[in-house]
Amino acid sequence: MLTLDKVYRASYALKGTARKTDMIHAYNVVKGEKIYLKTENLQTTGSFKLRGAYYKISCLTEEERARGIVACSAGNHAQGVALAAQKYGIPVTICMPDGAPISKVEATKSYGAKVELVGETYDDAFDHARRLQEETGCVFIHPFDDEDVIAGQGTIGLEILEQLPDVENIVVPIGGGGLISGIAYVVKKLKPTVKVIGVQAAAAASMVNSVNRHEILTLPSVRTFADGIAVKTPGDITYDIVENYVDELVTVTEDEIATAILALMERQKLVCEGAGAVAVAAVLFNKIDIEDTTTCCVLSGGNIDVNILSRVISRGLLKTGRTADLTINLMDKPGQLLGVSSIISKHGGNVIGVFYDQGEEEMAVNSCVLRIKMETRDGAQIEEIKEALRAAGFSLIDTMYQY
Amino acid sequence: MLTLDKVYRASYALKGTARKTDMIHAYNVVKGEKIYLKTENLQTTGSFKLRGAYYKISCLTEEERARGIVACSAGNHAQGVALAAQKYGIPVTICMPDGAPISKVEATKSYGAKVELVGETYDDAFDHARRLQEETGCVFIHPFDDEDVIAGQGTIGLEILEQLPDVENIVVPIGGGGLISGIAYVVKKLKPTVKVIGVQAAAAASMVNSVNRHEILTLPSVRTFADGIAVKTPGDITYDIVENYVDELVTVTEDEIATAILALMERQKLVCEGAGAVAVAAVLFNKIDIEDTTTCCVLSGGNIDVNILSRVISRGLLKTGRTADLTINLMDKPGQLLGVSSIISKHGGNVIGVFYDQGEEEMAVNSCVLRIKMETRDGAQIEEIKEALRAAGFSLIDTMYQY
Repeated sequence: MLTLDKVYRASYALKGTARKTDMIHAYNVVKGEKIYLKTENLQTTGSFKLRGAYYKISCLTEEERARGIVACSAGNHAQGVALAAQKYGIPVTICMPDGAPISKVEATKSYGAKVELVGETYDDAFDHARRLQEETGCVFIHPFDDEDVIAGQGTIGLEILEQLPDVENIVVPIGGGGLISGIAYVVKKLKPTVKVIGVQAAAAASMVNSVNRHEILTLPSVRTFADGIAVKTPGDITYDIVENYVDELVTVTEDEIATAILALMERQKLVCEGAGAVAVAAVLFNKIDIEDTTTCCVLSGGNIDVNILSRVISRGLLKTGRTADLTINLMDKPGQLLGVSSIISKHGGNVIGVFYDQGEEEMAVNSCVLRIKMETRDGAQIEEIKEALRAAGFSLIDTMYQY
Repeated sequence: MLTLDKVYRASYALKGTARKTDMIHAYNVVKGEKIYLKTENLQTTGSFKLRGAYYKISCLTEEERARGIVACSAGNHAQGVALAAQKYGIPVTICMPDGAPISKVEATKSYGAKVELVGETYDDAFDHARRLQEETGCVFIHPFDDEDVIAGQGTIGLEILEQLPDVENIVVPIGGGGLISGIAYVVKKLKPTVKVIGVQAAAAASMVNSVNRHEILTLPSVRTFADGIAVKTPGDITYDIVENYVDELVTVTEDEIATAILALMERQKLVCEGAGAVAVAAVLFNKIDIEDTTTCCVLSGGNIDVNILSRVISRGLLKTGRTADLTINLMDKPGQLLGVSSIISKHGGNVIGVFYDQGEEEMAVNSCVLRIKMETRDGAQIEEIKEALRAAGFSLIDTMYQY
């Protein structure tokens, strides 16, 4: 059974292994609100998962440790288990889906774990890990549905209450529910007036659906770039704790998550993965009422593939008017490119890409299409450039329909 | 005169305003080395500059405060002065060069400062600020050549010695020299066995040049994307302190800085600006001998424009083989694009951009050029794809000469 006693033991066991991550005032994320960030993205291994995995492994008997460990994970739990096993000198096999981000696979290997890439989804990896357990008799470390693992994550709750005694709301990402179970249990036992709010990606809202329908439901599929919380079925233990101890559940869209990632990078200098940014997304997009309260958002992890980060930034730059794409229908005569470039330059735009082609089917024979990518300050500057181009007689095509 | 007394006063004055930023073990930046990061990029305003600016302003008399404040800065000092002035309710004008990153201009305005964009360079802004001071009688807050400002930055030295008592080397970015002057002074007074190493961008090595020639020299120009340390002339005070208290000076290239920024994002989940990443660049590229020692790199700031960050990531992805550009000389006949796509797909490449054009001057009339941008795992996978394409009879053009 989960007890506060277990969480305090976990807290003691984790000293020297898990960092007591910083609590940072997000003075710039939402102006005027008292938002604080519990930076588990800066935890060793890049996510909170180390806490639960390490505490679980510290609870194993000598005999169990001798049998070795198996776990399955899309990435963060994998790294936590691998590092914990390395510290205890226990052989470990991690089953990961074939499509797991290469950075997470490499990081897991770097902690000395044997990695088996199996199947396409987390569920395939899970089945494989369970088979390995049966065949070899090793110990399976569940990523969330385990009271020792939950107790480990609960140490974050202890730290939040200590670092931010005035906290009124704690906003926590939910995948399988291990993190929020630990935090909610601790907080409700020690200071029940604090609200605990859970956030899922709308495209992977398994816990939200289950709690709404009062039974554990399995999603047919989960399609979110927040791979750390792409879980089809909540755990039995975590479902019970969430139903009993969590005050509110909300969801955020993929675009909202991407905007939160960009805001955290720009304004707080912190890299978060999708799963790690959902709490901030919920605050940014007013999914919860936190007005005039002291709110802690848990940044659960930072292990995002740089390719994906690069796309998130590109999309964010477009959405906030820091880059813009223009498509211009040009007459095929000399000096046209010069004309366009000089107008853009005069209004402070910085051209970073040009694509120039002869016209398309429905256009006049002597016309061309010019596509320009430019760096800009904001939407107003883009409008200014567009207006100036139109005033000079250029015909702009709405890029929404061009791409 | 700079004294330890002043630094301890600054430390006291800064309580409640500047964060005691976290010291993070960079377990992943250089494998096996004891590298720690003093995360001033997570300081309020996004850089250490708040410390010096706030302490300086706290030392002003009532009469001086009533006269108002002027400062000049490309960005970080601007934000520090603006926030400090706001806390004291002092009217403040900040002169910034016209090309200052828009994010830094906006952030400065957000703290209630009046911003004047003047001239193209920091020096133009400096001259303008000095003129304003003469005309209006307000107080000029120098970004680095001021003992109170240096004492403020010195508080970082106190924190490093407290947070990392075993420290043996401290690696510090140098622009004008205020930061390293404060840290070196404190460290050499309290624990002289600790080595203090300064790092400049090779393209803005004004302090390095001056110390090497034993006189203060002015660079004709500085061309580094690390705008926070793009300083043409060291200060009189900072030059003296660096010459007397700093053990070693090294430089890093623009590419080394970019690689360090990417490494900090990927491995430590921290966003640094160019200036903020030079200490880590020096460690990553073996500019200093730190083997088997406990080393602290000061991450001085994180205020990087997202447009620039996006470019740093793109370049880093290309350099590390996570994206690749292919240029293929195709015969103009049906099925060619299909052939190329299926080979790339079979070897796990993910196409993210295609440019297809009729041939160029020196090519056969019936040939085409296909340019493909794809996401890849690493250099080995790129070679594998190239080999497979060549084996299938496709003619690859060396992209180095194509772009």
